[in-house]
Amino acid sequence: MRLSRYFLPVLKEDPKEAQIVSHRLMLRAGMVKQQAAGIYSWLPLGFKVLKRIEDIVHQEQQRAGHIPLLMPTLQSADLWRESGRYEAYGEEMLRITDRHKRDLLYGPTNEEMITDIFRSGVTSYRDLPMTLYHIQWKFRDEVRPRFGVMRGREFLMKDGYNFDLTREDALHAYNRHLVSYLRTYERMGLQAIPMRADSGPIGGEDTHEFLVLAETGESEVFYDSAITDLTFGDREIDYDDVEQCQAVMNEFTSRYARTDETHDEAVFAEIPEDRRRSARGIEVGQIFYFGTKYSEPMGATVVGPDGKKVPVHMGSHGIGVSRLVGAIIEASHDDKGIIWPEGVTPFHVGIVNLKQGDGSTDSSCEAIYAELKARGMDPLYDDRDERAGAKFATMDLIGLPWRITVGPRGLANNKVELTSRRTGESEEMSPKEAIARLEKIYRPVRDAGLDTGAGVAR
Amino acid sequence: MRLSRYFLPVLKEDPKEAQIVSHRLMLRAGMVKQQAAGIYSWLPLGFKVLKRIEDIVHQEQQRAGHIPLLMPTLQSADLWRESGRYEAYGEEMLRITDRHKRDLLYGPTNEEMITDIFRSGVTSYRDLPMTLYHIQWKFRDEVRPRFGVMRGREFLMKDGYNFDLTREDALHAYNRHLVSYLRTYERMGLQAIPMRADSGPIGGEDTHEFLVLAETGESEVFYDSAITDLTFGDREIDYDDVEQCQAVMNEFTSRYARTDETHDEAVFAEIPEDRRRSARGIEVGQIFYFGTKYSEPMGATVVGPDGKKVPVHMGSHGIGVSRLVGAIIEASHDDKGIIWPEGVTPFHVGIVNLKQGDGSTDSSCEAIYAELKARGMDPLYDDRDERAGAKFATMDLIGLPWRITVGPRGLANNKVELTSRRTGESEEMSPKEAIARLEKIYRPVRDAGLDTGAGVAR
Repeated sequence: MRLSRYFLPVLKEDPKEAQIVSHRLMLRAGMVKQQAAGIYSWLPLGFKVLKRIEDIVHQEQQRAGHIPLLMPTLQSADLWRESGRYEAYGEEMLRITDRHKRDLLYGPTNEEMITDIFRSGVTSYRDLPMTLYHIQWKFRDEVRPRFGVMRGREFLMKDGYNFDLTREDALHAYNRHLVSYLRTYERMGLQAIPMRADSGPIGGEDTHEFLVLAETGESEVFYDSAITDLTFGDREIDYDDVEQCQAVMNEFTSRYARTDETHDEAVFAEIPEDRRRSARGIEVGQIFYFGTKYSEPMGATVVGPDGKKVPVHMGSHGIGVSRLVGAIIEASHDDKGIIWPEGVTPFHVGIVNLKQGDGSTDSSCEAIYAELKARGMDPLYDDRDERAGAKFATMDLIGLPWRITVGPRGLANNKVELTSRRTGESEEMSPKEAIARLEKIYRPVRDAGLDTGAGVAR
Repeated sequence: MRLSRYFLPVLKEDPKEAQIVSHRLMLRAGMVKQQAAGIYSWLPLGFKVLKRIEDIVHQEQQRAGHIPLLMPTLQSADLWRESGRYEAYGEEMLRITDRHKRDLLYGPTNEEMITDIFRSGVTSYRDLPMTLYHIQWKFRDEVRPRFGVMRGREFLMKDGYNFDLTREDALHAYNRHLVSYLRTYERMGLQAIPMRADSGPIGGEDTHEFLVLAETGESEVFYDSAITDLTFGDREIDYDDVEQCQAVMNEFTSRYARTDETHDEAVFAEIPEDRRRSARGIEVGQIFYFGTKYSEPMGATVVGPDGKKVPVHMGSHGIGVSRLVGAIIEASHDDKGIIWPEGVTPFHVGIVNLKQGDGSTDSSCEAIYAELKARGMDPLYDDRDERAGAKFATMDLIGLPWRITVGPRGLANNKVELTSRRTGESEEMSPKEAIARLEKIYRPVRDAGLDTGAGVAR
């Protein structure tokens, strides 16, 4: 993309309404615009990041064998009356009446609807195990929406639902989600720690939240510092392998890590003092096992091997897709702006032309731009007639992890500068070397999505 | 995907509520499930088609230089009071009150919001031309929703908006959209004819609808049969080239083609009688030029080259993404089921194992399945323990354009059968030849999306 033809309305001043850094930077970098309290437009740069995150979530869900579909944003109130949650849900549910005076609602979550889909399409245990998921906009009418997309009212969420014959199978589905989530967050450059949590209005006996440590987090968390040494890495997982998934679950939940809702001072005190940590965390996902809580009242049964109808065991599993954009910024920024991890950056590299209009720098920039695109990379070329300082400031603010700087002095020796946004370090090299270096840097990002079956031939 | 692990709730009986073939086939093929009047869940097979269509639209919009963003589904009523449309819109607008008694609405279209985004981010003519678009769910509270996704209430639409300094530039944007739409529909295997239409509540002086001819179409159309000979083909277009886009516009609108709203019997009568056609059509898109209708009341101005503020010239341009799924089926089916064009088919090929459980057919099917995936294709392997007849019926119903049939008798001679869904013709060949043939068939589909800049490295 050429910046001269893009829509990137960056702000020079800090917006007054932003209380936390991700909100401030998303507004300054022209990523979002508020349209009403807690309701945002995703401007082009923000939309690109949102899409990258969404694609990673799709790929990892499908790698784990989960099946995508798409439920609508509006739901019939009748469905929620079946589960008993229509009255129970409270004011956070946005209730709507259509022209024929029928009660609708803007879905805050989809347990009822997915159970309805399941019960009308599946009758035999032979079709299990099954996990269905979607990525769709939700609405929760928060009393005080704030912190930008971190606590918005209209938000994008991945929510998945497993259907299993037995409690044991459902617990494997629970573990499978935990494993796939670890991998998902790591691809986004995030460490998200699974912590024992409280199940709230979803209900159920077992639940873990995934938290990203950040000063601005809304939750107080307590953990054994040994847990932050764990990484998922590029281990091969067979998601059908019960023991393998259980082993990952055990590994990542064997250390103390809890939100304040389930925190137990006595157990915490058993950890060696130098490893006891209390901090703040941002919740970016949650998994639940709730058994037959919805299948029983809603009649979602299958005929088991013995010919008897039994209600299925279910769980639900969410990832806060739009919230992740904010969470990643909270975890990765400096005083100049955002620092995107390579896995989610809106553009892979920025090209800064130090002397726009100069025949030699222009043609060199064009050649680099074309070659990067030919190799499947997504560059942003700042081809505006602006001072170098302004171009650097914009690149730093929007946080592209790499920058190629092209000026007449370097070009005289066939050199450009490749700069890391994270370290600030620059290195001189030929344009050809810079392109090869970037290709190498982004190869793992590209490869990570290739074998997932998602987005094939799109 | 293995069918044994998929969620494909096909129906054996014709559902009573379906009045038109696309609705009937979408229900029977397990593509959608109605959740409330005119509100549908997109089950896995339907979701895949929806995504393919969405991807083509994204790619062709970005090829034309249009910039994606994403506006929310809910909007503030205040914005619509500025343009005067809040009161004018009528009962089709779903009006909502939140917990703080603020007026919201579920966006039926986005002229106001995009104008708001533009005016707060752009101040100079130097940032023009600019076209912003999104693909987002909309809601129109139809009195009588019917025909499945063809006339739903919650529907997915691509709507794009151009911002230009002059009327002349905006008319180029109009032409550019026409060209990109022709290309978009052809990639979906559709002939959509641009017809002079009426602008309705959007307003404006110039508008064309794109119509797919089909008996079940809601519009009566009149045209010169010579227009159906035109194809866009794989011509190279420079979307910045005013004359080139104008030439395409002239070519595709020089023949008489109008909806009943603008039909003129006198002009129609001038066409040679044997070329005069009246038929029915399904509207799958519409482009508008409406000048300063929104920019003037809403203060969307830029400073022009002469230093004076002028309101921008705008147009809006829509493609009915979810409706297209139905329209494609209306245009492409037979009495056995759907016949997907290669460009949008949910799976590229079905593999039918005639003797599930037989070591030789199983391993041959597995090898074909793996090899197709390795080559970037998306096969559906019917690995269920079912009769051949049932497997064929399912494949015919869901409409995959190609089927590979693997049985012990053929395999003895290293042969499988490759069958075209459209012609019903089968050909015996080795598994290797079948794979090579499919790769060749799908190469244009894959290549069509490669150079668009959309979805790079996703």
